Amino acid sequence: MVGRRTELSYAQAASRAQAVIVNVPIEHAENVIREIGPLLTAQQLLIDNTGVKSQVIETMLKSTAAEVLSIHTMFGPHVRDLKGENIIVIHTARSGQMAEEFENVLHKHGATLTVTTAAEHDRLATLTQGLEHVISAARMAVIQELAGGPEALTPFSTPNSRLSMLVDGRIHGGSAELYATMLGQNRAALATLKAFGAQIDAIIAGLECGDSSRLAELLKANRARLTDEFVERGTLLTGQLQDKLRD
Amino acid sequence: MVGRRTELSYAQAASRAQAVIVNVPIEHAENVIREIGPLLTAQQLLIDNTGVKSQVIETMLKSTAAEVLSIHTMFGPHVRDLKGENIIVIHTARSGQMAEEFENVLHKHGATLTVTTAAEHDRLATLTQGLEHVISAARMAVIQELAGGPEALTPFSTPNSRLSMLVDGRIHGGSAELYATMLGQNRAALATLKAFGAQIDAIIAGLECGDSSRLAELLKANRARLTDEFVERGTLLTGQLQDKLRD
Repeated sequence: MVGRRTELSYAQAASRAQAVIVNVPIEHAENVIREIGPLLTAQQLLIDNTGVKSQVIETMLKSTAAEVLSIHTMFGPHVRDLKGENIIVIHTARSGQMAEEFENVLHKHGATLTVTTAAEHDRLATLTQGLEHVISAARMAVIQELAGGPEALTPFSTPNSRLSMLVDGRIHGGSAELYATMLGQNRAALATLKAFGAQIDAIIAGLECGDSSRLAELLKANRARLTDEFVERGTLLTGQLQDKLRD
Repeated sequence: MVGRRTELSYAQAASRAQAVIVNVPIEHAENVIREIGPLLTAQQLLIDNTGVKSQVIETMLKSTAAEVLSIHTMFGPHVRDLKGENIIVIHTARSGQMAEEFENVLHKHGATLTVTTAAEHDRLATLTQGLEHVISAARMAVIQELAGGPEALTPFSTPNSRLSMLVDGRIHGGSAELYATMLGQNRAALATLKAFGAQIDAIIAGLECGDSSRLAELLKANRARLTDEFVERGTLLTGQLQDKLRD
């Protein structure tokens, strides 16, 4: 492990390692890659673990003679082990034997690996990360504005709202800067947020005319395309989680 | 229990009961109250359990000589017992001895009772119900639109997005009509949704200029007003729930 607070220089670390994982705040990733890439040989492996893939892979390929692999660990620092957690893997033109061995190590520790492209990663990760963070920030801002804070809602909480608010608590314990940088650097984020905003606007436009049927239509159209399993799993597991919260 | 599918008439039921709870779809509540209210005497108790309080209390007071109490059980049909669940109680000018006894029964079964006003109920319940349902409907619509469905997101899911999606599953198993009627009848719903939409719009407006700092600002402003306990509880309990999901 080499960082701003360690004695070991990049050059010393690079000379000793089989693989170097660049796991730094996203706004520093490309600079670190440009610095460390040239120190690696074709017998080594350079990996980035950043949350947005648009530019970083190209920078790696340009900056090093080493094998190049891109990953994204889909979880934060509070997860204790890899078992059952998602890792996205993006192969490059220079992902070879070393990259394969590295993937095998992740597999061995129980992670679920999915191979995709940079564009696909960015497009789908906005739905599970950017949109999730934006909704949480906006909801908590409204709760502060209209209720003074989440405590005022405790008597009005439902099984669903209690779970959502736990997620809000977790997100607000994360890094605001990291979430904002991930949102800003992801080329797919704007389209995702606009699609969400348009749905909210349509419900508001109806309500302004005293018509709330848009909400029912949306829920029913969604339901028609969702599997029974998705709905039953949500109902069953939220129920179990709620039981756990009451104990 | 009297309903559309029972032999017992309202008159028969009313003559036998100490208390009558009107627990029907919200769009029928006032009609049922007008029908059953006159059948009750001052020695009986009329209670509504509807999700929006603006008009229903007035209708009860006008329709009966009985004691009048208004409650809202803040949970759906999947909850098996009252322990730890919230019930909102609104006293009226004619909540007396019978109403008090009824509240004692709910207490005895472990419910958390909170006494408030109709206006306060409607204002705060939009934050835990209307907003929750609207966010879920809009998010699932966007996921259908951009990813084809939630299954496509499985490899990209994070600990947070998995919990949110369980809540989405549960909400989409509920009654779309009930959710829409509750939203439409709640006078506070429009202000709540507009406040939420304004936050989303502000983030989108920034992103259109390549600036995602609004998300960081919001998260930080929220965090400054949230207690450490709220954030720590969210982090701890979502972690425990996620462990449970992996088992």
